[in-house]
Amino acid sequence: MPSQEPVFEFPIHFESDGGDGGRHRRTRRLHEQLRAAILDGRLAAGSTLPSTRRVAAGLAIARNTVIAAYDLLVAEGYVVPRPGAKAVVADVATRLQARSAPSVRATGDARINPRWRQTQTYTSSSRALPPRSFRLGVPDHTQFPHAVWRRLMAQSLRTWSKTAFGYPPSQGIPVLREAIAKHVAFARAVACVAEDVVVTSGAQQAFDLLARLLVTPGETRVAVEEPGYPPVRAAFAAAGATLVPMPVDDEGLQVEALPPGVRVISVTPSHQSPTGAALSLRRRMALLDYARAHDAVIIEDDYDGEFRYGGRPLDALQTLDREARVFYVGTFSKSLFPSLRKGFVVVPAWARENFIAVKHAADSHCDTTTQSVLAAFIRDGHLARHVRRMRGVYAQRREALLEGIERELDAWLEPIPSEAGLHLAVRIRDPAQAERVIAKARQHTPGVQSIAEYAALPVQAPALVFGYGVIDAEEIAPALRRLRKALESSAL
Amino acid sequence: MPSQEPVFEFPIHFESDGGDGGRHRRTRRLHEQLRAAILDGRLAAGSTLPSTRRVAAGLAIARNTVIAAYDLLVAEGYVVPRPGAKAVVADVATRLQARSAPSVRATGDARINPRWRQTQTYTSSSRALPPRSFRLGVPDHTQFPHAVWRRLMAQSLRTWSKTAFGYPPSQGIPVLREAIAKHVAFARAVACVAEDVVVTSGAQQAFDLLARLLVTPGETRVAVEEPGYPPVRAAFAAAGATLVPMPVDDEGLQVEALPPGVRVISVTPSHQSPTGAALSLRRRMALLDYARAHDAVIIEDDYDGEFRYGGRPLDALQTLDREARVFYVGTFSKSLFPSLRKGFVVVPAWARENFIAVKHAADSHCDTTTQSVLAAFIRDGHLARHVRRMRGVYAQRREALLEGIERELDAWLEPIPSEAGLHLAVRIRDPAQAERVIAKARQHTPGVQSIAEYAALPVQAPALVFGYGVIDAEEIAPALRRLRKALESSAL
Repeated sequence: MPSQEPVFEFPIHFESDGGDGGRHRRTRRLHEQLRAAILDGRLAAGSTLPSTRRVAAGLAIARNTVIAAYDLLVAEGYVVPRPGAKAVVADVATRLQARSAPSVRATGDARINPRWRQTQTYTSSSRALPPRSFRLGVPDHTQFPHAVWRRLMAQSLRTWSKTAFGYPPSQGIPVLREAIAKHVAFARAVACVAEDVVVTSGAQQAFDLLARLLVTPGETRVAVEEPGYPPVRAAFAAAGATLVPMPVDDEGLQVEALPPGVRVISVTPSHQSPTGAALSLRRRMALLDYARAHDAVIIEDDYDGEFRYGGRPLDALQTLDREARVFYVGTFSKSLFPSLRKGFVVVPAWARENFIAVKHAADSHCDTTTQSVLAAFIRDGHLARHVRRMRGVYAQRREALLEGIERELDAWLEPIPSEAGLHLAVRIRDPAQAERVIAKARQHTPGVQSIAEYAALPVQAPALVFGYGVIDAEEIAPALRRLRKALESSAL
Repeated sequence: MPSQEPVFEFPIHFESDGGDGGRHRRTRRLHEQLRAAILDGRLAAGSTLPSTRRVAAGLAIARNTVIAAYDLLVAEGYVVPRPGAKAVVADVATRLQARSAPSVRATGDARINPRWRQTQTYTSSSRALPPRSFRLGVPDHTQFPHAVWRRLMAQSLRTWSKTAFGYPPSQGIPVLREAIAKHVAFARAVACVAEDVVVTSGAQQAFDLLARLLVTPGETRVAVEEPGYPPVRAAFAAAGATLVPMPVDDEGLQVEALPPGVRVISVTPSHQSPTGAALSLRRRMALLDYARAHDAVIIEDDYDGEFRYGGRPLDALQTLDREARVFYVGTFSKSLFPSLRKGFVVVPAWARENFIAVKHAADSHCDTTTQSVLAAFIRDGHLARHVRRMRGVYAQRREALLEGIERELDAWLEPIPSEAGLHLAVRIRDPAQAERVIAKARQHTPGVQSIAEYAALPVQAPALVFGYGVIDAEEIAPALRRLRKALESSAL
């Protein structure tokens, strides 16, 4: 046996074993030891991993064993593969710090599927926030037409009390699918009829079901935005996808950087999550071209695109698509409220039956009472009315935010161009000051997040994200002023 | 290359290929050709498959290739493994006929994960049924306290209108977890506190999340009841489990037949689905012993155990368990109504955080409005009251059913002993007449199902299942009389 060349700066141990399951066990041992090294910092975030070939030679084991161990680390999010370059260690520490009081179980019970053995626990960071804050992704309950909702609920329950109990269709009740189809056709020019719509438990279930449908575990490469929405990454990783993180800039996802072999591209074209950039028309066309050339499909996540403040919206990818390659995902979490837990997917016909089968196995169907209230709310025009009204409310807040940042914080912050949504991302001009700016922002503008909380890789361009869903316009300027003063007084 | 010995009665073709991905491709080719043979009947239901060794030798390919292809067929439900014996071809045709108007896409789109590529489409068979019928698993809406539900809903919505929007905890809102814990501790002697309870979108999501948590794809063997509830099999197959079908008799799952190496046992101890048998105390203890000896966990599915008509209920497995090996799954689909879409799992502490992480990735959380109404309904004693009242209603129907079967149909049918639930299974005395009896029953007692609809293997003891959730006691006798007359007049 050749002596071990030091491929890592710490030893890797294997039990001596000549048995049948040896390779499997060696994979696990290697995986465990590398993971432990990432968690305790011996393998630092951002450092590159040695090639599988070099590790195999250095440890005198089969290269497949190393590949399998690396794959596990990628699936768990500890390592990020890069097309055409060595994989790097993910920024686990930053991801953890980002949430309040997270805990990682370094080793889970052996009875649990390894994919779920290491899990972060999120204690809701929102609970510690004041009721009015810059928190992200939550709309305003004070402006919601609660009386209308109560009335429609009472009506729905009355009708329902005369209906036999039963198991409703997995794809959603017909009146809701009809209402959603009309709504997105009108509001977003998405080409669809009721049959194309499948109702889900929020957008998160849509991503989870799509991941299960479209990912062959261990095979399918899925491009995700970097930085991007972490729960989307989690759903694809859980399904066994290899994630391909794609950089984003002021035109959205850098489509031209897509490596060959990607089968699924998950993208937020209306309002990139979290930078807010819109995917340019040029890039939209290039993305559809890529999908055609590589037989890939696109998941278009349109989570808050109803709220637009300027210009004409660009056509949805689904609208531009001529080849049924786009799965359009919508949600009522931003336009109505998150705990409604209703989203939907406009599914191409070739995948519809299979998608419904996944939904059926996952939870059979969505609760009907809420479905029928939502259907009535959309059908009677309340959704369109509410979105129109809230667009005005949020536009004022956004204006106050943009003005305040320019007036008070221009020395430190620069807004990323964006015309939609419920949040605004701003670059930190001097990366060297990022840590200080983020700390002060957390203190004086509670709810604000660092873009690092959305990143799997070390962040190149540090930024802050301000939500304006639950803060009043007149509260914005004083908060930004406090932040300016804090930054001035703590300057070096 | 040796000439092919005819292991199958049809040729198997491989592309000539010496490349790297060769074994993988050969697995797929073999899998596709065997599946096609099962679907078009060349491999008949119930026939045994040749051993992997023989196929490998006959086709001159690696045995691992054959094992992998067989595993895929098992995961998809086309082949049923038998402990210590050759695998048999599943009864795909019967399973399909069982549902009205099913369609199988023999080949799905290549962009879809192979696990979901062949899917059966269920068009709800219930829609064709008269409103009052012997259909299974659905409770009676005419007896539900709709006015109470509406009042609690209005109250909940009023409280909620004063609460900031947000993303509630994935494990369920605290008041509901508290209410469920108290309810199951009192009603079912399940040992738990609020922290142990995780709210799910019905029992089906509980099975799906547990399957994803506990099954390592391609590795974990899961024992399921045969016959048993098909959606449970579907959830475990989707997670990549190897299913081990376990025979059931009048004492429930035949625990002593459990082969070694099973890691998860899914069981309906209160009221076996579909035979209705209760798992005997002797078997309950033996099952816990098995779990201890083999480091296995148990999923206790208590779907309709609240409705008991005689004797003292046996202790739940969860109650008897001293080693935190039991996941207790409950649902409100039978005690309240299915479209409520609320179930729960009492999760052992060692798995709780991981289970909540799976729920978080799957759909973030359940809708809160319904959760708070349900919490109030339980807390104010309405659930206990409703279950008590319905037990009386269903007991009368069950009595009418037992009496009618004895009076009219004793020549053909024999009830399987059962003391709980919303349905009754009856054996068909003469298996030779099974087809005729089933056909006549479908015609004259609509809603009745053949036990074959719950079976993955060919049925040894044919039986019918009568639901009494949505039929009035006085309608039962006339229907059974019509069935008797039809059987007499069609007798050979």
